[in-house]
Amino acid sequence: MITPRTSAVQWKNEACVLLDQTRLPSEEIYNELIDYRDVVADIRRLAVRGAPAIGIAGAFAVVLALREMLSHPLSDRRSFIDRAFTNIENARPTAVNLAWAVRRMQRLLADANGLGDAAYDRALNEARLIHDDDIRSNQMMAELGAALFPEDCEVITYCNTGDLATGGVGTAFGVIHEGFRQGKVKKVYPCETRPVLQGARLTVWELQKNGIPYSLICDNMAGLTLRDRKIGAVLVGADRIARNGDAANKVGTYSLAVLARHHKVPFYVVAPSSTFDLSIATGAEIPIEERHPEEILKAMGANQPPYEVPVNNPSFDVTPHELITAIICEAGVFNYPYGDLRARLDRQG
Amino acid sequence: MITPRTSAVQWKNEACVLLDQTRLPSEEIYNELIDYRDVVADIRRLAVRGAPAIGIAGAFAVVLALREMLSHPLSDRRSFIDRAFTNIENARPTAVNLAWAVRRMQRLLADANGLGDAAYDRALNEARLIHDDDIRSNQMMAELGAALFPEDCEVITYCNTGDLATGGVGTAFGVIHEGFRQGKVKKVYPCETRPVLQGARLTVWELQKNGIPYSLICDNMAGLTLRDRKIGAVLVGADRIARNGDAANKVGTYSLAVLARHHKVPFYVVAPSSTFDLSIATGAEIPIEERHPEEILKAMGANQPPYEVPVNNPSFDVTPHELITAIICEAGVFNYPYGDLRARLDRQG
Repeated sequence: MITPRTSAVQWKNEACVLLDQTRLPSEEIYNELIDYRDVVADIRRLAVRGAPAIGIAGAFAVVLALREMLSHPLSDRRSFIDRAFTNIENARPTAVNLAWAVRRMQRLLADANGLGDAAYDRALNEARLIHDDDIRSNQMMAELGAALFPEDCEVITYCNTGDLATGGVGTAFGVIHEGFRQGKVKKVYPCETRPVLQGARLTVWELQKNGIPYSLICDNMAGLTLRDRKIGAVLVGADRIARNGDAANKVGTYSLAVLARHHKVPFYVVAPSSTFDLSIATGAEIPIEERHPEEILKAMGANQPPYEVPVNNPSFDVTPHELITAIICEAGVFNYPYGDLRARLDRQG
Repeated sequence: MITPRTSAVQWKNEACVLLDQTRLPSEEIYNELIDYRDVVADIRRLAVRGAPAIGIAGAFAVVLALREMLSHPLSDRRSFIDRAFTNIENARPTAVNLAWAVRRMQRLLADANGLGDAAYDRALNEARLIHDDDIRSNQMMAELGAALFPEDCEVITYCNTGDLATGGVGTAFGVIHEGFRQGKVKKVYPCETRPVLQGARLTVWELQKNGIPYSLICDNMAGLTLRDRKIGAVLVGADRIARNGDAANKVGTYSLAVLARHHKVPFYVVAPSSTFDLSIATGAEIPIEERHPEEILKAMGANQPPYEVPVNNPSFDVTPHELITAIICEAGVFNYPYGDLRARLDRQG
């Protein structure tokens, strides 16, 4: 069994403690947040990111909001907490885990007594459950996924999907880590993942901490790497998966899926059931966050252009289900064609 | 007809004048070089880059070396100039235009009287011919290539292939520019081109100067852009083309060719005949330059990792001929399958 080295999101001293991932890999700084608005701000600025991790952070943000709510008279509490739910849920639009966690907290507090003084303890308990469930899901996925690797293979991964992106050992990263522990995965090629460099900054940091051999590549080297190395699989996480299996993930995932298909290499999406959005039929319904051009332009460092540069900066793209060899979930490995994902996930709506 | 806005390489005041492309787009600085070793250093550090441009710079470097040679006694001249030829030709390994230009100069100076006092004028004349030929080739390719665009299309391009990369209006960029002038090309998506950002820094600079509408994308967004926009063609340059049409170009070109094929979009390589290396049968024989990891890691800015990061940094990759819809050359448009490229180029060896 593998264990996480770092906790991106923790509940400690009555505060939500977040590792500031914008400072990695040069500095490892943990911030204790007691105002839910600071958690929202940290989600927006990518201090905490990764679909499962922002779900957990969102749940703890609800706990902080509830504590603040208790200082208000009973008559004001419902409007206060509804505003907080909306703020937290809207911090980022694409990853469904955030909305999923907030709604789970919302349901818990929906009844008439939901906002009394006992609410805080109930909410904290629920947020911890969400975190613990994610830890267990990570472990299940790591074991289910590692069974799929051939012996002696190398793998490509994208963006960051390890301790930093989840509550536990990660999604795609957890599978790779377990595959390495079992001696099947010999080397990892993390793509740097432009523009925010989650691969170069965060996945490399995790590979380094866990002693897993790797070689960093630029995203545009994935085709070459698939052609020239013994790549056994490409593994990625997901931010939202539609009922037909279409999966939104960090922009560039779609290109990578096409490249994997061209080279006949299995392409696995690794995601817990909290990443599935069964309310939407296809990936066309997934909202795609457009982020600031600055994220792309700052790579020029001191060489900034003396004119305004029009930029496309969608933060995610959608990989159509037919390019996904299998979705690895804690509920099982769903090989394409997936059949009825609702039934396989054993849940409604 | 279109005209270039900038001259990356010029012969002025008995010096080779190079625009320092490492400082673009923030500063436009021209350096007058009178020592051929400085031209070699500028080729190595990418102050001048682009296969045709480094061919021209290499020819002017030979002229500078010849002038220095004339201060040596006749008996020392051959060994001096042979050393210079080798230094210049080896500045960078992949683009064949550099070796091609140096060898053309070498042949000129090979005879017994080659290194006499008249050598300087003969060499300068030949270097200017190389430059003028490139200007004319650019113009021919622009016109031949633009005829291939459908009406009202958008295009994707990669790395930098305009004024900065050639002697004239460019290779792929010239074709796009002419297509824009004819009203067929409405918008360009330049890929930023990691790690050195030739697309974001240089192609955007050229698009801006020429008033061509564009939107910068990260390399990993090419798949998404091919799927969601009306892309009529993907156009790239080349650094060396083998006898079977396999083409080496900036790393990432291969991925882009696979993506274009998946989306059934024509993929054009635009290159003058000086980029063909008919001495090699396939792309497997093209030497691929591996550059310093620092080129990739510096994108992290102040967030540098506190450990050494293993990196793959090949500067080029080879696109197999079967993924290239056509090669656009001044000698004609070679549609796949190309047949005998040697005959089509009307030259030997």
